[in-house]
Amino acid sequence: MAPDLVIVGSMAFDSIKTPFGKVEKTLGGAATYASIAASLFAKPGVVSVVGKDFPEEHLEFMRNRGILTDGIEIADGKTFHWAGAYEYDMNEAHTLKTDLNVLENFSPNVPESFRDAKFVFLGNTDPRVQLSVIEQMDIENCFAALDTMNLWIRISKDTLTAAIKKVNAVFMNDAEIRMYTGTPNIVKAAKEVLKLGPEFVIVKKGEHGSLLFSEDDVFATPAYPLENVVDPTGAGDSFEGSTMGWIAKTNDTRESNLRKAMIFGTAVASFNAEQLGMSKLIEITREDVDERVELMRRITRFD
Amino acid sequence: MAPDLVIVGSMAFDSIKTPFGKVEKTLGGAATYASIAASLFAKPGVVSVVGKDFPEEHLEFMRNRGILTDGIEIADGKTFHWAGAYEYDMNEAHTLKTDLNVLENFSPNVPESFRDAKFVFLGNTDPRVQLSVIEQMDIENCFAALDTMNLWIRISKDTLTAAIKKVNAVFMNDAEIRMYTGTPNIVKAAKEVLKLGPEFVIVKKGEHGSLLFSEDDVFATPAYPLENVVDPTGAGDSFEGSTMGWIAKTNDTRESNLRKAMIFGTAVASFNAEQLGMSKLIEITREDVDERVELMRRITRFD
Repeated sequence: MAPDLVIVGSMAFDSIKTPFGKVEKTLGGAATYASIAASLFAKPGVVSVVGKDFPEEHLEFMRNRGILTDGIEIADGKTFHWAGAYEYDMNEAHTLKTDLNVLENFSPNVPESFRDAKFVFLGNTDPRVQLSVIEQMDIENCFAALDTMNLWIRISKDTLTAAIKKVNAVFMNDAEIRMYTGTPNIVKAAKEVLKLGPEFVIVKKGEHGSLLFSEDDVFATPAYPLENVVDPTGAGDSFEGSTMGWIAKTNDTRESNLRKAMIFGTAVASFNAEQLGMSKLIEITREDVDERVELMRRITRFD
Repeated sequence: MAPDLVIVGSMAFDSIKTPFGKVEKTLGGAATYASIAASLFAKPGVVSVVGKDFPEEHLEFMRNRGILTDGIEIADGKTFHWAGAYEYDMNEAHTLKTDLNVLENFSPNVPESFRDAKFVFLGNTDPRVQLSVIEQMDIENCFAALDTMNLWIRISKDTLTAAIKKVNAVFMNDAEIRMYTGTPNIVKAAKEVLKLGPEFVIVKKGEHGSLLFSEDDVFATPAYPLENVVDPTGAGDSFEGSTMGWIAKTNDTRESNLRKAMIFGTAVASFNAEQLGMSKLIEITREDVDERVELMRRITRFD
């Protein structure tokens, strides 16, 4: 069966500590958050790797949400484990531990049935893996987007740039795009990334919302103002997963539809931050999301 | 002659250094920025103090913009002098010098002709001064708003709280409202300030836009995405001055009109940041502002 949207990225066990609670070795990872978020709108197929310690029930859970798991390799060894903590301001994760385990030597194998998908999201992972997936897909005929993080900008900038040159859209947070371009101004930084080839650059600013840059236009949206931010883990991944899920579902890559997609992404990401890990993300329905999208209209409207 | 809007606050000489330039002892101060911004929409009357060293040409310049200067006391001594510097990130001013001079013992005297004004903006200054102006005005019959800063929250919190209890709207930036309430979450912090009495709390977030809180509603707007931020000095004051100027001009204090007012404020503040000091603010016309308000519509719209 062919997915609407191929999603690549890490799958992980996360140990998270915030001022409001903690959780040990819960299901996490960029591809996990992104695919669960995307499954609110479309049928994602995941390309990733887990270890022999990864419970079958997690895969079963994903399949029950309509996520295709054929592209998840179960490798000898342990699943990637990330441990992080947040202070009261919640703006930055302090990484306490990163055990790459099976992720370290992951060489992705995109299932035959995934290769003609029209949408690909290369979630945060080694740019080598992102490039390898690009090479296995019919990249000229699909809409591909990529996310990254400070680690890859530091240690694999050239490979990352090679991947950026092949995709239609780039997601980065404000600190990452400043670091990648060496330009403190976000507008200038986004224009530099556009010059590399992508049609769209989406800058994520957490509680401050997000920006969409294209050749002729800018779109800016605030975040949904949350009274209870419990855990920002996966907010970016679930924003991206649902943004891409909406685009895949509507099969419309015009700038006007990317704006709308980002509002759906904003709504989903806001739910995700309201509880530890992905406990809220897995609970919400499409109706909950639609309701929050209506609230986004209400809070941003002016005559 | 009666002003549409009374504006209280400091008038100053500013010495500013940013990575893009510097300027010595240029015209500055909260009431100056706010009144010049407000004069794009309405007739402001300023209550402030300057020293004998304050050039008559500055007052003349303000009068030529329709600003009433009768409430500006010329006291024995020197005008308030502020010196500050910004790094590349532009998010925070590093204060290098604060010579209060005539501001230190300022006891405001609101001209008779100002006392029935229907709109008052108590710009950033000693809460004692703000309270004194409140007492001299017909405060029950006017729409009053107040701004403050970290210094007053630290050394005059009780007086500040007394002033907050008397006004309809409070402006604070995100760091200030967190500090004032001791609450890291902005939504919760704003609700705490609303409980003190004001109908509206406006949280300024600089390059990240602003939020308007009222009992039943929230409005969130991004900032105008600027490619060249040269100097953020006075951005908050010009945002507030033009927001209040628009409200005074339209004589409409409904939440829906405050939203619109904040978009005008956002537009004016964005121009102000494009050049050193107030050199751009004094150049722009109402047409320039309307044009940027249209851009704000364009960059925030989604279907």
